Amino acid sequence: MGTDYVHGYTPAETRRLTDQAGTLADLLHGGTTYPPGSRVLEAGCGVGAQTVQLVTRSPGIELVSIDISEESLAEAKARVASLGSPVDFRLANLYELGDEKVDHVFVCFVLEHLADPVAALAKLRSLLEPGGTITVIEGDHGSAFFHPQSPRAQAVIDCLVDLQAAAGGDSLIGRRLQPLLEQAGYNDVRVEPRTVYADQYLPHLVDGFTRKTFVAMVGSVRERALAAGLMTPAEWAAGIRDLSRSAEPGGTFHYAFFKGVGRT
Amino acid sequence: MGTDYVHGYTPAETRRLTDQAGTLADLLHGGTTYPPGSRVLEAGCGVGAQTVQLVTRSPGIELVSIDISEESLAEAKARVASLGSPVDFRLANLYELGDEKVDHVFVCFVLEHLADPVAALAKLRSLLEPGGTITVIEGDHGSAFFHPQSPRAQAVIDCLVDLQAAAGGDSLIGRRLQPLLEQAGYNDVRVEPRTVYADQYLPHLVDGFTRKTFVAMVGSVRERALAAGLMTPAEWAAGIRDLSRSAEPGGTFHYAFFKGVGRT
Repeated sequence: MGTDYVHGYTPAETRRLTDQAGTLADLLHGGTTYPPGSRVLEAGCGVGAQTVQLVTRSPGIELVSIDISEESLAEAKARVASLGSPVDFRLANLYELGDEKVDHVFVCFVLEHLADPVAALAKLRSLLEPGGTITVIEGDHGSAFFHPQSPRAQAVIDCLVDLQAAAGGDSLIGRRLQPLLEQAGYNDVRVEPRTVYADQYLPHLVDGFTRKTFVAMVGSVRERALAAGLMTPAEWAAGIRDLSRSAEPGGTFHYAFFKGVGRT
Repeated sequence: MGTDYVHGYTPAETRRLTDQAGTLADLLHGGTTYPPGSRVLEAGCGVGAQTVQLVTRSPGIELVSIDISEESLAEAKARVASLGSPVDFRLANLYELGDEKVDHVFVCFVLEHLADPVAALAKLRSLLEPGGTITVIEGDHGSAFFHPQSPRAQAVIDCLVDLQAAAGGDSLIGRRLQPLLEQAGYNDVRVEPRTVYADQYLPHLVDGFTRKTFVAMVGSVRERALAAGLMTPAEWAAGIRDLSRSAEPGGTFHYAFFKGVGRT
């Protein structure tokens, strides 16, 4: 949507986003189902990780999923094809959408990339039928804390936050969902944290979230962080090594997503 | 327990701890009930804020509540008196407890003050009957994040963390509960975050938690922070003012407690 993405479009990233949805699907999608026949717009479907969840959890909806990347859309189509649920995939910027109305809008991991999230939310609101809802899910990298603590590990996370900010986005956006939805004109805005906590008693989360989602996501910006002069290769390696200790026995990791729902 | 307390024993603090338990009781105590007749030890009852919850939620238990402060114990007694549930209050350091065994141990907001929490947990384990459980609840001030963001507000929180550390405690202990319980020899250790998120749609939490618990707790260390030279009075005032914005309309506040259960 006109902004550089800090993550999202390399093969390793595709794997990460898919892993993330597989591990976190219940956490993120819990409470979100739409009645059969509802017209739902997924704004920014990426490689289809959430699209799969939408059609699986809400059978019979009329889903339109848009994205600005042709490659991602192709992957999303392939991913959904085997499910036998029709999805109307469109290559589109949300600002290019006409005045075709929908009953519900679903937006996941998109606002963090946008320079003007309120404008995007207001545009989406204009597409909703009266009484329609928007559901927004975003992370907040400031919610990441872990054991063992490590300033070097924190520094690599800060690189990701800084790169996202330099690209016009905000990876600390989760905490702002409520005021953003309010400013965009939504009513009855309800936001709640959806928290991942992983320790050795939760090995599927240690592997699926700490290691394959969070550490992998931070690791994916190495080249950009080094190119931007934010760190030396040695500092980067030390930071990733320390961060990875949170996925070893005796380590713990905490992260909060935020899920918000608003009405027209 | 031999350590200076960073908070806990002034009248304003008594009010805060009571407010905290009143607002957060369901969040913290949810899932914790003991069968009638169980012998339960509350180690570090303070002014009785959690004692009230224990006897209310588990009628018929034989509760022993210990603390090292005579003043706090007196308040705890007065607080519980009106409930008509007998509690055996004792002025004691947990290391002075004999070999009288109990079925369950409950510890809330105590480990954060101790220089050697593993030793304390191991001592408590030695008091448990085979198959007995320990329940531990602690905060983690590193889980506090908020909107609007403010480095000045973060700096006053950091003062609290630094003062606690200087007194031999650790106000970032929540994230360590699992390894601490493991190191103390407990089995089947299960830890989970218990998260408070407050925005204007949750006014009881904005007032009861953000304002009257968290901001009040940070505010209570002003004199010590200034005496320690951590900040100027002007910096302190600016930090508290910024932090208070998270309790105004459009502001948000996030905090995670951690609750852990282990078995002998």
